[in-house]
Parts: sequence; C-alpha cells; structure tokens
Amino acid sequence: MELVTVRDLFKHTADYAGKTVSVGGWVRSVRASKTFGFIVLSDGTFFQPLQVVYHDTMDNFAAISKTNVGAALIVRGTLVETPDARQPFELQAEEVTVEGASTPDYPLQKKRHTLEYLRTMTHLRPRTNTFQAVFRVRSLAAYAIHQFFQERGFVYVHTPLITGSDCEGAGEMFQVTTLDLNNVPLTEDGKVDYTKDFFNKPTNLTVSGQLNGETYAMAFRNIYTFGPTFRAENSNTTRHAAEFWMIEPEIAFADLSDDMRLAEDMIKYIISYVLENAPEEMNFFNQFVDKGLLERLHHVMTSDFGHVTYTEAIALLEPHNDQFEYPVHWGSDLQTEHERYLTEVVFQRPVFVTDYPKEIKAFYMKLNPDGKTVAAMDCLVPGIGEIIGGSQREDDLETLRNRMHELGLKEEDYGFYLDLRKYGSARHAGFGLGFERCVMYLTGMGNIRDVIPFPRTVNNCDL
Amino acid sequence: MELVTVRDLFKHTADYAGKTVSVGGWVRSVRASKTFGFIVLSDGTFFQPLQVVYHDTMDNFAAISKTNVGAALIVRGTLVETPDARQPFELQAEEVTVEGASTPDYPLQKKRHTLEYLRTMTHLRPRTNTFQAVFRVRSLAAYAIHQFFQERGFVYVHTPLITGSDCEGAGEMFQVTTLDLNNVPLTEDGKVDYTKDFFNKPTNLTVSGQLNGETYAMAFRNIYTFGPTFRAENSNTTRHAAEFWMIEPEIAFADLSDDMRLAEDMIKYIISYVLENAPEEMNFFNQFVDKGLLERLHHVMTSDFGHVTYTEAIALLEPHNDQFEYPVHWGSDLQTEHERYLTEVVFQRPVFVTDYPKEIKAFYMKLNPDGKTVAAMDCLVPGIGEIIGGSQREDDLETLRNRMHELGLKEEDYGFYLDLRKYGSARHAGFGLGFERCVMYLTGMGNIRDVIPFPRTVNNCDL
Repeated sequence: MELVTVRDLFKHTADYAGKTVSVGGWVRSVRASKTFGFIVLSDGTFFQPLQVVYHDTMDNFAAISKTNVGAALIVRGTLVETPDARQPFELQAEEVTVEGASTPDYPLQKKRHTLEYLRTMTHLRPRTNTFQAVFRVRSLAAYAIHQFFQERGFVYVHTPLITGSDCEGAGEMFQVTTLDLNNVPLTEDGKVDYTKDFFNKPTNLTVSGQLNGETYAMAFRNIYTFGPTFRAENSNTTRHAAEFWMIEPEIAFADLSDDMRLAEDMIKYIISYVLENAPEEMNFFNQFVDKGLLERLHHVMTSDFGHVTYTEAIALLEPHNDQFEYPVHWGSDLQTEHERYLTEVVFQRPVFVTDYPKEIKAFYMKLNPDGKTVAAMDCLVPGIGEIIGGSQREDDLETLRNRMHELGLKEEDYGFYLDLRKYGSARHAGFGLGFERCVMYLTGMGNIRDVIPFPRTVNNCDL
Repeated sequence: MELVTVRDLFKHTADYAGKTVSVGGWVRSVRASKTFGFIVLSDGTFFQPLQVVYHDTMDNFAAISKTNVGAALIVRGTLVETPDARQPFELQAEEVTVEGASTPDYPLQKKRHTLEYLRTMTHLRPRTNTFQAVFRVRSLAAYAIHQFFQERGFVYVHTPLITGSDCEGAGEMFQVTTLDLNNVPLTEDGKVDYTKDFFNKPTNLTVSGQLNGETYAMAFRNIYTFGPTFRAENSNTTRHAAEFWMIEPEIAFADLSDDMRLAEDMIKYIISYVLENAPEEMNFFNQFVDKGLLERLHHVMTSDFGHVTYTEAIALLEPHNDQFEYPVHWGSDLQTEHERYLTEVVFQRPVFVTDYPKEIKAFYMKLNPDGKTVAAMDCLVPGIGEIIGGSQREDDLETLRNRMHELGLKEEDYGFYLDLRKYGSARHAGFGLGFERCVMYLTGMGNIRDVIPFPRTVNNCDL
C-alpha cells in the first residue's frame, strides 16, 4: 500500500504541501460539528499526531463522526500548511476509509491513565503518548549503543543464554530443563537424573556474558555483547526485573583507565544520539515525567566525569553518616543513598568510584599492588546512582588461581577461563551496563516495569 | 594504553608510514635467523595480520625468537611501506615486550585444524582465520540488520524470552523454573504446585516473538525484533540449534506484497553491507570455504526475486517427483530438496513461494478468498532453501476465531491477540529470519555450530 508516514509529513512538510497523500493510522480523538470535523490520527511513526479535517461533502460523514477512539482509518487528502495554527499543517480529507473499527469500551479513552492501570494491558499501552515515547527512546538507545561500538570496530558477540555454569556464583538463577516436573527421572541413588535432560546436565539462564565475552576479547581485542540476562531474585522493587538486557564490552590491551574512558564516551554518545533523534519524546519527558531531565542530561554530556577511589569516597561520606540509613565504613558496600550523595552532592556530576576492597567484589577483578583492593570501577550518575560496573580483569594466572582457591571456586569449572591466562594473557577490562537502567535514566521513568515492553517480575509473566 | 590497531595500519597506511607506533597482538608465527626474525602478529581487528621484523640489536632478541605461538606481545616500531613485498608494509621493531607468554602445547599451532577439532575449544577457536572471519561477518550482519530497519524508522522491540504461552503451539519448549527438581512441591491432588514457582505458573523459553511483536506493530506501525529464541528439538543436524537468534519485523497497513518487498530489500542490504565492510573475510570464504560464494551473492544482490504460488510450484515440481526422496503433491509441505530445486534449477535465483494450503501453516495467517490457502510466503535462496518465512496476519476477528476453534486453540489464552482485532484492526504482515541461517548463507559455512560462538545442541552446553 502506498501510504506516507506521519513522520515523513512532519519531517518533509514542504515536499508534501498541496499534494494528495494517503495515511493510515489510529484514532486518538474525533470532534465533529454539523458540517465538518477533526480527527487526531496517530500512525506510531512520529510522536505528534496528524490533524485531519473532514467535511460533510463526504458520503460517510455521519458514520466517520461517530468513529470510536482506537479505530484504524485510512485517510486520503491534501496536505495544507497552517502557519497560524497550533499544528504546522493539517490533512484535508477527501476520503476516509475504516480499516478496522473500535468499540466504545476501548480501554484507552482520551483521558489520563495511571501507569499502574496501563501495566495491566501491556499489549495496548504502547499506543499511549508515554509509552510511545518510552519505547521509541528504548529502540533508539539500543541502536545508539550498536552504532557506538561498531563505529569503533568492536565485534558484537552473541554470548549464550543457556549456560551450564554460574558466572559470579551469583546464585538466584532460573533452571532450564526438558524434564517432566510431574515425573522427574531419578538415578539409582535417588537424585535427579540429568542424563535424561536435554543437555545431559543441569543448565541455567545466564546472569552475565562476561566470561564468555572475555574469550572473544582475547581473539578480537575489542568486543561487546548486548543480550538478555536473568536473575531469579525475589525482590519486588521498582528497579529489579527477572529478565533484562545488558551491554558488556570487553577490551584487550587495556586497563581500568581505558575502561572508564570507554564508559564515559559511551554514555555521552547515547545521550547525544537520543536527544538528536527523539527531541519530541525527550521534551515530553522533561515536561510531564521528570522536570529536570534535559538539564541533567545536558550537564552529563558536557561534564568531565569525576574520579575518586573507594577509600577517598569513604572519607568523604563518613562525616555524613548521621544522614544515612546505613552508616559507611571502609569495607562496607556502597548503598544507593551513598552513591547518590557522592554524585549529586559532592561531585554534582557523574563520578567513577574505583579500587574497591577485594572482599566486596568478584573473583575475576585485578588485584591492586596494595593486595587489599581491586581495579574495579562503578560509574555513578545523578538521579540514579550506579549505572555501570566494571573492572580490569585479573590477567595473572597464579594470582587468579589463588583468588579462586580463597573463594572455594573449583579450577575445573573454569578451565577455559584459566586458559586465557595461559595462552597469551593480555591486560584487559570491561564493564556492564544494565540497559533498562539506562533507559530509565534517559527518560526519567521511575519503574523498570515501564521501560520493558513485557516485564517479567516475581509472580508476573503476562503475555 | 596508546596502541594503534592493525586495522588502522591497513586502512590508513599512508598516515603511519615512517612513523613510530605501538601495536599489541597475538603471535601467529615466528621465523628467526641468527641476526633477524619475522613475527606474524594478529590483534583481531583486521583479517590480515601484521608482519613485524626485528633484529639482534634488541636486548631480548634471543628470547623473542623463542616466543611460542599464541603469546601476547606489544611491539613498538616504525612502519615501513614495502611495495614490492607480499604485504604492503611491515613494522620494523625497536622494542618487543612480552605481555603474556604462551606454551609449546598451545592447541592452535600453525597448521590446518579441522572444524570438528576446533569445536572442542570454543574459547580458542575465534583466534583462527576461519572463525575470525565468521564472527566478524556475524557481527557486521547483525549491525546491517539494525541499520536497515532503523534507517526506515522501524522501532526495535525486545520481546520477552520467558513466556507463559506457547506461540504456535510449537511444542518442544524448554521449561524455566526455580522449583527444586529434587523436591518438586505438589498440590493436594499430586500435581506440580506452580504457585511455588517464580512466576506463579509454568513458564517456557520463547519460540518466537511474533505475537508480542504484533501488539507493537499495532502501536508503532513498523517494528522489528532481534533476539534469542529456543527450540528443544531433539535433532542433531547441521542446521538445528537449541538456541538461536531471530529477526522478526512486523508492518502494519501492509499486505503480503509489502512484506515480500521488505524481505527482498533486507536480504540485499545485508549482503551488500557485508561485502562492503568485510571484503577480506568474504574473499577468504570464497577461496577456502565455498568457491561459488561471491558469484552467488552478487547474483542475489542484482536479481529481482522470483514469485510463484504454492499451487504453481507443485505443478512445476510434480513432473520431477522421480528425482525427489519425497514426492510432492498438492497439500504436502515442501522439503529442502524441493525448495532447492525451485530456487536453483527452476528459477536460478531467490524465489518467494506464496499462498500455501492453510493446513500446513500457522493459525494466524490470513485466509485467502479461496478459503483453502493462506497469504503466507517462504523465501527460498540457492544453496540453502528456505531462509525466511512470513505471512500476512489474519486481521478479521471472526475469521481468526473460527480458525482457532478449528485447531482447538482456547480463546482465553489469546485474549490480547484477539484484542488487536477488536480495537483498530489493520492489515499487517511480518516474517522471521533465522539469523544463523543467514550467517551460514553469507559465509558458506555448512554447520550451524560453526556460526554460533557457543552453540547449544542436544547434549551439548559447553561454557
């Protein structure tokens, strides 16, 4: 069908002015008088809808005036510029055809709905302004990330989702199985007989692609992953989902400074791309969702990120322990309240906190010369706290082995990972960006359920 | 670290000629005489390796000459153009530092290894020529797909991986659970008590994002998904994996012709992008993996794809039934042998087969006016057979309901899907492209295990 998009009409108005075009879209509202009427029509390609004017010269004038909200129409008409009106142009209809009707009880009537209410209809909510904006920005942010890495020659690696190992010993994993739970096969000594399972052993959904990603960084130098990850965490908060997407770049012949530079460049790139490609959506968020959003994002884009070691950060925070729910001391993990204090009050811009005590970080992080801290970094941003966590990886075989022994990790489970340190080990580093947290940050949306098309959380797996 | 990439040296040789640069990479081979030697060094950023020349003026000349294959080195030296040699330039080393040693038993010695052997070391095989080429092309093809859709204003939708429904009733799904298989909780009547499971009901890994994708097409008009999908199929073939990636665009106000045009444009775009951005890799495949590859791809890029109905196709195939393992007749599904005969012998170019009998296609495909066939299309390409399957979707509420009743599908399981036909139904269509099959097609690789970084197949879930 030769239909022009509403986006094209807005972006290339002059090309269409005075011409006859056909547009397909969904009715947001109809206002009719006796002789003419207005239809607000959205085709989902542009944040602003199209204003259609129609007259009683049309055969089906009366029927169209009774169109229910949500109906799909195809409108043929002439585009007329309206420099003095609120909208820059309107479509003067010659013909309006009903592609698909709607009903008077269509759940999205022209009024304000709460986000909670819209969460009960994940299949319809993308038709509302807020979710049109959220999910277009989500799409653009995803593409910005690919573009950022591809322009820099990074290789995109699809690390596996189903895994036989448990990366960080993170626990709380989903099991994947083809065994019949009503009739689990057992071995002679009464345990689950995994030789009957699809992969001939127990398997889970991955919590991180990092270790697999490292094997590719040791071949391609610069790689990134961008895929789903899973946590079976029983926490019902506004920031946790059981299924979410992660970006995990890994760079070889690179140290923690290179890693932080990459993270800073990436964040600035994403913000800049979204501001440039979704200005209407971003203005909407700034106006209706989070008043300080644009100022904050512009500030981040133009600031040099701060740098502070964990030890320095603790010294900055300790004098304010009376303001915190959880007082800090050297050795304790930073909570969101501390992270936000650092980035919002102390630095007033994004800041990297580096060199955490090894006890509170993962086994694969590179031990610093002090023997107490590791070359880790968390990137904290105003309004949200931690958005990125990364580290230089332990590239020394013996140091890594010792650390694994300390933590009770079995060498045989990590043979491939140790091989990377045996055969041409090279300093390398990487980080993880939780994509949903990134979208929340870009849009100001406060609940992770509202930035995932079909969110999965405890007790909730609709559609 | 200020290291230049080998890619930069090859792409911008003139800029670096005569200058001192530092490069980090892994040793492919060392050849040493008494006073000088050659190192072939790959840093993974470019298909061709860097030739390094070093002399006995270096303190560690003897040690470097004994470097094991696979070791990581950092070389500082001067780039010298060598117009008369096989390689366009070499790096005359001033300093060679060992970043990480290797061992004499490094599994990837400089000799030809079989793909089967390399499959036993998925963490090291990306360091070989073949897999450097495969996985760079895979990355570029993925990016080409994003670029194709984003340039056309499509919204990228992350459809869920964990699902409570079974899209096409495809069976053969992986179950996702947090129940303890050693101690499955039971209800009073002895069934699995799913109220104790994470999502409060049984859940599986998705086999397709299409139905979810349709809900977004009815909001954004043009969308695409690109994510992992799963099949617990017990088939140990060169074309089946349990975990693979799929691209599923969905377009509204569009019919089967629009759908086919989109598919044809996309395939040509991917081929063209990969040929332009990975010429070295594509030449390698053409020379060592699949001799006719480049000619075939160029032919596809410049052909108008053929179009034939299923009914016509059967008439074309039936006279040759004696050549087929499975004779065809109207009503039977096409096997790979038939598909290949059509595209390779009859059409000698890619061809769309359309309008299949409804009995062999899915419930959601639009019933044609003949009442017997549906508006489905499969795209067949020479050398592989089906690469894309798609259809116009049934957008009429009553027809869809009838079809579901015929097939015994319960309306209550598809409430959201029927809503799309109740509230502003619009003709729409979409297709699915199996990404791995696409990469096999682009590279000529014959086994799906060799185009997935960490393949998952029956009894195989390594790393």
